[in-house]
Amino acid sequence: MNDNKPHKLLDSILYPADLRKLPLHELPRVCGELRDCLIQELSTNPGHFASSLGVVELTVALHYVFNTPEDRIVWDVGHQAYAHKMLTGRRDVFHTNRKLGGLHPFPSPSESEYDTFTCGHASNSISAALGMSVADNLMHSDRKVVAVIGDGSMTGGLAFEGLNNASGTPNNMLIILNDNNMSIDHSVGGMKHYLHHLHTGTTYNNLRQRASQTLMQWGWINEQSKKRIIVFNNAMKALLNNQQNIFEGMNIRYFGPNDGHDVIELVRTLRSIKDMQGPKLLHLHTRKGKGYAPAEKNATAWHAPGKFDPETGQRFVEETDNLPPRYQDVFGHTLVELARTNPRIVGITPAMPTGCSLNIMMREMPERAFDVGIAEGHAVTFAGGLASEGMLPFCNIYSAFAQRAYDNIIHDVAIERLPVVFCFDRAGLVGEDGATHHGAFDMAALRPVPNLTICSPMDEQEMRHMMYTAQLPDKGPFVIRYPRGRAEHTEWRCPMQEIPVGKGRCLKEGRDIALLSLGPLGNLAAQAITQAEEEAAAGGRTLSVAHYDMRFLKPLDEALLHHIAQHFSRIVTLEDGVRNGGLGSAVLEFMAEHGYTPRVTRLGLPDSFVEHGTVPELQRIAGIDKESITRVLLE
Amino acid sequence: MNDNKPHKLLDSILYPADLRKLPLHELPRVCGELRDCLIQELSTNPGHFASSLGVVELTVALHYVFNTPEDRIVWDVGHQAYAHKMLTGRRDVFHTNRKLGGLHPFPSPSESEYDTFTCGHASNSISAALGMSVADNLMHSDRKVVAVIGDGSMTGGLAFEGLNNASGTPNNMLIILNDNNMSIDHSVGGMKHYLHHLHTGTTYNNLRQRASQTLMQWGWINEQSKKRIIVFNNAMKALLNNQQNIFEGMNIRYFGPNDGHDVIELVRTLRSIKDMQGPKLLHLHTRKGKGYAPAEKNATAWHAPGKFDPETGQRFVEETDNLPPRYQDVFGHTLVELARTNPRIVGITPAMPTGCSLNIMMREMPERAFDVGIAEGHAVTFAGGLASEGMLPFCNIYSAFAQRAYDNIIHDVAIERLPVVFCFDRAGLVGEDGATHHGAFDMAALRPVPNLTICSPMDEQEMRHMMYTAQLPDKGPFVIRYPRGRAEHTEWRCPMQEIPVGKGRCLKEGRDIALLSLGPLGNLAAQAITQAEEEAAAGGRTLSVAHYDMRFLKPLDEALLHHIAQHFSRIVTLEDGVRNGGLGSAVLEFMAEHGYTPRVTRLGLPDSFVEHGTVPELQRIAGIDKESITRVLLE
Repeated sequence: MNDNKPHKLLDSILYPADLRKLPLHELPRVCGELRDCLIQELSTNPGHFASSLGVVELTVALHYVFNTPEDRIVWDVGHQAYAHKMLTGRRDVFHTNRKLGGLHPFPSPSESEYDTFTCGHASNSISAALGMSVADNLMHSDRKVVAVIGDGSMTGGLAFEGLNNASGTPNNMLIILNDNNMSIDHSVGGMKHYLHHLHTGTTYNNLRQRASQTLMQWGWINEQSKKRIIVFNNAMKALLNNQQNIFEGMNIRYFGPNDGHDVIELVRTLRSIKDMQGPKLLHLHTRKGKGYAPAEKNATAWHAPGKFDPETGQRFVEETDNLPPRYQDVFGHTLVELARTNPRIVGITPAMPTGCSLNIMMREMPERAFDVGIAEGHAVTFAGGLASEGMLPFCNIYSAFAQRAYDNIIHDVAIERLPVVFCFDRAGLVGEDGATHHGAFDMAALRPVPNLTICSPMDEQEMRHMMYTAQLPDKGPFVIRYPRGRAEHTEWRCPMQEIPVGKGRCLKEGRDIALLSLGPLGNLAAQAITQAEEEAAAGGRTLSVAHYDMRFLKPLDEALLHHIAQHFSRIVTLEDGVRNGGLGSAVLEFMAEHGYTPRVTRLGLPDSFVEHGTVPELQRIAGIDKESITRVLLE
Repeated sequence: MNDNKPHKLLDSILYPADLRKLPLHELPRVCGELRDCLIQELSTNPGHFASSLGVVELTVALHYVFNTPEDRIVWDVGHQAYAHKMLTGRRDVFHTNRKLGGLHPFPSPSESEYDTFTCGHASNSISAALGMSVADNLMHSDRKVVAVIGDGSMTGGLAFEGLNNASGTPNNMLIILNDNNMSIDHSVGGMKHYLHHLHTGTTYNNLRQRASQTLMQWGWINEQSKKRIIVFNNAMKALLNNQQNIFEGMNIRYFGPNDGHDVIELVRTLRSIKDMQGPKLLHLHTRKGKGYAPAEKNATAWHAPGKFDPETGQRFVEETDNLPPRYQDVFGHTLVELARTNPRIVGITPAMPTGCSLNIMMREMPERAFDVGIAEGHAVTFAGGLASEGMLPFCNIYSAFAQRAYDNIIHDVAIERLPVVFCFDRAGLVGEDGATHHGAFDMAALRPVPNLTICSPMDEQEMRHMMYTAQLPDKGPFVIRYPRGRAEHTEWRCPMQEIPVGKGRCLKEGRDIALLSLGPLGNLAAQAITQAEEEAAAGGRTLSVAHYDMRFLKPLDEALLHHIAQHFSRIVTLEDGVRNGGLGSAVLEFMAEHGYTPRVTRLGLPDSFVEHGTVPELQRIAGIDKESITRVLLE
């Protein structure tokens, strides 16, 4: 853990082909150096830490045994793939990881031939690897395909659909179940229980014990039989291992559970199973944060710890006392406030209690807050079931992950107008997590769905009013979208009041242009208006821009829009989502419907996937930063 | 099976409370009368037949044992719920089933208090029932909740997510697994295999056999031990029954498999388990079409057989020799034609081989056509995996069900621009299946997604050209949407040619109005134009309407739109999808972007869920029928 400590072996490894030249006994040293290197890099360039440390041995073993990139490794959720990046020609540029123009936050096929599939959203690896393996069969290639999936991702229905199909379609895929008994927080539900049982071998042990007892009672066992008993036990174990578990029950050969940190043994196991025909699953136990004591102790905090001192494990925690709260905490605290007085309220998160701050409610009223695992579709339908019985669920999902519940929102909630409050955290640009994580599509995708109310608060006080309004009687399904990061004011615990649904507000009067914004981007817009008016004045012309916070994407404030259409010939719309189909389009539809013909400029995300970088950098690229808005107003 | 045969017992049952007054031994008669009544009704008023016959005994037993509507029955996929409707106050209006203004095609909470949850899309019952059961726990109610789910629906990931969560969240839900070994066609994959093993008890039988053999070899068994062996076997069986299966492994108590057609036994079983605490699952074997010989023989054909003679089982098959082909068959045959010359092509369907006609390819090239089960998300990600290895998958999904794969389309295909051809059958209004089945949202939801090409053919020849174009090199992800039902021409096997991507076509020149249509609705539009021009002429005015078939929703034909904007001040857009965010909005965006200010009227589906009825009836209601279009042109 010394910056200047040479990584002798690692320095000789540019690509996996170099790794494969080493003798087997050197691999533990490679793992040590790799882990050391990861700790150094991540201490100064923050990223996903604990999961990457947990798969160092697995990564080395995979690239040692398999002929990558000809053989395919499909990582499920790219958090864990940093060691993979370092071994595949990207160690020298790893310092650019997650930065604008730098390495992608997750494996990315457009970045490297060693990255085989997009993996920002959990649970897709088995389906993708199955497709690859079937393709190889059809093309008579004997390329190997390996999916690496965590126990948390196994709770996603997509993983199950993939497993289910893998058993019925000819393929030679290897699934590696990386079982660290937690996804980002902790994995929950039956699959966890199930895997735990596979681990401890309860079934087998119970059976063995009861069988022995029975045989003893019947007088069939004596000292002489001991050896035979062992044979019998082993036969039983083989039999049970072959037959008892869900994977075997689905025709997928099961191996394990093995120690995922013994790289030599891992290599031996992988070598012995890699050429077997048919689908197979190797169950490994690993530890998140392995090899770095502070992270082993608290893997949740060290999931993405930010900068830290590698020697002491001291995390450089941002001084936040005088900062506005994060939106997620406004959600978390406000929900508890509301739930104290409204007994119908419950909270739901698909595996993000820390990320969305539902953990606040889970501590105070554990029986009313539910972490359902990585299962966004279920989270929504479960909420629908609760709502149909009179409860009022607040279902919190990251915007980009809510894409997975699109049908559930339509079919299981909107059709019957059930009172579910969807809180979409991480809406809009999220920054360093990049294309797979931006909450870009929620507004355009949900606006066409009947019966939904969709809003976005401009600050934390508005957020509280919206949450309060959403839980009042007869509001139907309600979507509140808000971004990652901090809100606007340090004084935010305002009394809550109802906001009339579908009513916007005028923040500033004006004569020349009406700027219509939705959500926190309105704060940038306000600054841009000031700057534009000042620049215009400095240039000797007058410019007067009115600013409206629309608050609601749906229903639109038609009275306000009539007023605006009657008073302005120039309108600028601003939103933190794709431009096609969003607020700007809604305004155009309104104007066309009512025969108005103002000039409308729509600002928002472009019709291309926005990559990774800081939020301000990405806003500039998308043309929704203060400067770009100012230029548009001055046009 | 005589129309005049009295249903003595059934006539006394208006509601389940009446049923519950009968002695147990009368239930088989009730089932017989109910089955008879279903056969009579469905022979003249077509609907879903075979699945409803398969659950007659289960339905009677459930309403007999449980205190409905206070207790909740959640049907997974409403196909099976006709007997339920007949027992819950709707027998006298059952002849209105699926008709405009009549009974909903599936259980509908807004129609009856006995219908607890929307159930048009498969696999949602466990999640919804879990929500209800948890709500009851929180409200200290001792209401019972029962989910009834078929084995086909069990392949959907949502069902697994629900099961997984059910094991970790306190609830007393009863899941009834209605295992008829087929969903609409046949259930596929590991779950089928798994359930089959539960049925035949292979694990147990093998274990018993091997154990006996071992004991024999060791000389431990003789004739005298026989009785003890039986005890040992039973102990083993109990042990395995308690521990071996996935449901028990997930902490869900498992009962079964039982005969789902023995109503007396069913009542006894349900009574014995209904008050048990904790989640539990009862596995029933039933037979689709049970009690009607023709349907038992061929359940796929009798899934929704149309009208038939109840006495003879003769189906009144429509005379189709001189009709245009169904779009689905154009897809099925054309795909095989293309696949014969392009070895990269494969076909994928999530459980709809007959419905989408992929069965044509499955017969001719079985190794290249995949039925992945009810698993739309997996179908898309699996396609992505195939495409990433150089294959060219045609992934056929009903438009409404494709909503379930929204994230997979974005994350697993669009981001890397993988060459997957999505064929969305049943796009637009589907008629009698109603709100859950209309393909209303595909265009508005997918238009905002970067990298996609989206098109819709106006007739079967265009469809073939589009399919041909989509499989040419470097086209990226390609969406072809087309409706349920028949195409336009009987001569449809035209030579195929490339259509330039993003190019529309002028079907008719005109001076006053430009009508821009997308897809087969263009044929109605052409008729409306003729009628409007004739009516105008008859009224002494001239009206000249130009007609453009846009072909592509994305990319838009910008050159064509510039031309139109420069020549027309009045534009009418027409599409078979929600108006908000679709083609009309795209045209408005283009006009705003380029400073054009034509008057644009957008015709399409409204911002409310369209109910059931015939397609022409629903088109009239939505204002996209010939008459409505004519009126708009004459305005």
